[in-house]
Amino acid sequence: MITKQKAVLLLSGGLDSTTTLAIVKSENYDIYALSFDYGQRNRFEVQTAKAVAKVFDVVEHRIATIDLRAFGGSSLTSELEVEKNRSIDEIGTGVPATYVPARNTLFLSFALAWAEVLDARHIFIGVNEVDTSGYPDCRPEFISAFENLARLATRMGTESSEEDTPITVHAPLQSLGKRGIIERGLELGVDYALTNTCYDPSPEGLACGGCDACILRQRAFHELGTEDPLEYHTRLQVN
Amino acid sequence: MITKQKAVLLLSGGLDSTTTLAIVKSENYDIYALSFDYGQRNRFEVQTAKAVAKVFDVVEHRIATIDLRAFGGSSLTSELEVEKNRSIDEIGTGVPATYVPARNTLFLSFALAWAEVLDARHIFIGVNEVDTSGYPDCRPEFISAFENLARLATRMGTESSEEDTPITVHAPLQSLGKRGIIERGLELGVDYALTNTCYDPSPEGLACGGCDACILRQRAFHELGTEDPLEYHTRLQVN
Repeated sequence: MITKQKAVLLLSGGLDSTTTLAIVKSENYDIYALSFDYGQRNRFEVQTAKAVAKVFDVVEHRIATIDLRAFGGSSLTSELEVEKNRSIDEIGTGVPATYVPARNTLFLSFALAWAEVLDARHIFIGVNEVDTSGYPDCRPEFISAFENLARLATRMGTESSEEDTPITVHAPLQSLGKRGIIERGLELGVDYALTNTCYDPSPEGLACGGCDACILRQRAFHELGTEDPLEYHTRLQVN
Repeated sequence: MITKQKAVLLLSGGLDSTTTLAIVKSENYDIYALSFDYGQRNRFEVQTAKAVAKVFDVVEHRIATIDLRAFGGSSLTSELEVEKNRSIDEIGTGVPATYVPARNTLFLSFALAWAEVLDARHIFIGVNEVDTSGYPDCRPEFISAFENLARLATRMGTESSEEDTPITVHAPLQSLGKRGIIERGLELGVDYALTNTCYDPSPEGLACGGCDACILRQRAFHELGTEDPLEYHTRLQVN
């Protein structure tokens, strides 16, 4: 019997991380999924992540609770309003208000702690080309810097030589836009009705349809000529 | 009026971080102290940190709750026994059982998140020469790697040029041993009766006297020819 390698995967249950999960699943890994309850506005995210983890039959799914609201600074974790119905040009400019300070640094640090305990050498994160345009902590340079830190920060690191990468941070969507991500996921049989990417869902958990995440997603499905299977509060009219 | 610079300081209320606080206080900073309730065996740590923060009159003291017990892997956060009465040679060898996976990476990530919200450009951490011998995430290379990550991870980073260090991680004790740390602290008037470094205090909060932290501390005071003002459950007999 061939032993599978262990992978720790950051899972929000959104479109990106779910597609990443499908990719990891198609490779030879035992998957340990990690989600966060961080006071995010989308309180359904954790439930979505649980449902996704179950469908993909991960070895273990943990939810870490961290209170990022204590620091504030983002419309995702505070009373700041989530911007709605922005044009594609607006969406592509600057660091958005939905940026949560140091979020990916924190998430990857938790993943690193768990990887070290599991002796897992692989961490997967769903950052991609769209994120890169606005969020500093999604850029390839950031991912490399974290890998370097992981080598120096861990017990595994002290036991390996300087050329080794004892822990690899994989970002398989890094060079893909939303359309490419969905295409890849559909090939792998992802049911995108499961994934709710919305920054600001209705009290019943329906995706709003108008936040940056909902707009980018609906446009990508439209460009692919496929129906987005997710239910929306107000569906975007794409011309 | 000269505006002070803002500094985020990691504060456990132990000997090292309290001395670091005294150093930062002696320089020209507004201090934002950050402590963690992370399921550590020393449940009094947070109270100690609060008392220390009060004495040094910091601008703000926040306690972030994170559940590191969920990951296990350390005698400080699990039912593993804390080793007692080890010799100085034993204490100096290998990664100790008290190592908490990725702890400093996590702590610095939280500090970074808060620094970003505060627009603080300085983070202080009390890692030192003694830690460096056993804990991978206390080495100078680790601190530099985190600084590099901080530059790439943050909004401040995207707004600065590549040569800039938008966030500096200061480790003023880096080259000091316990004796040097205490000497520096006494010069600055630190009351070490406040600081409880013990890994495994009694139910009443008394330092055990026999864990690595208690041993190193008592030996250092002894070498300095000064009485350690901390109350111990069982005081070390140094010959």
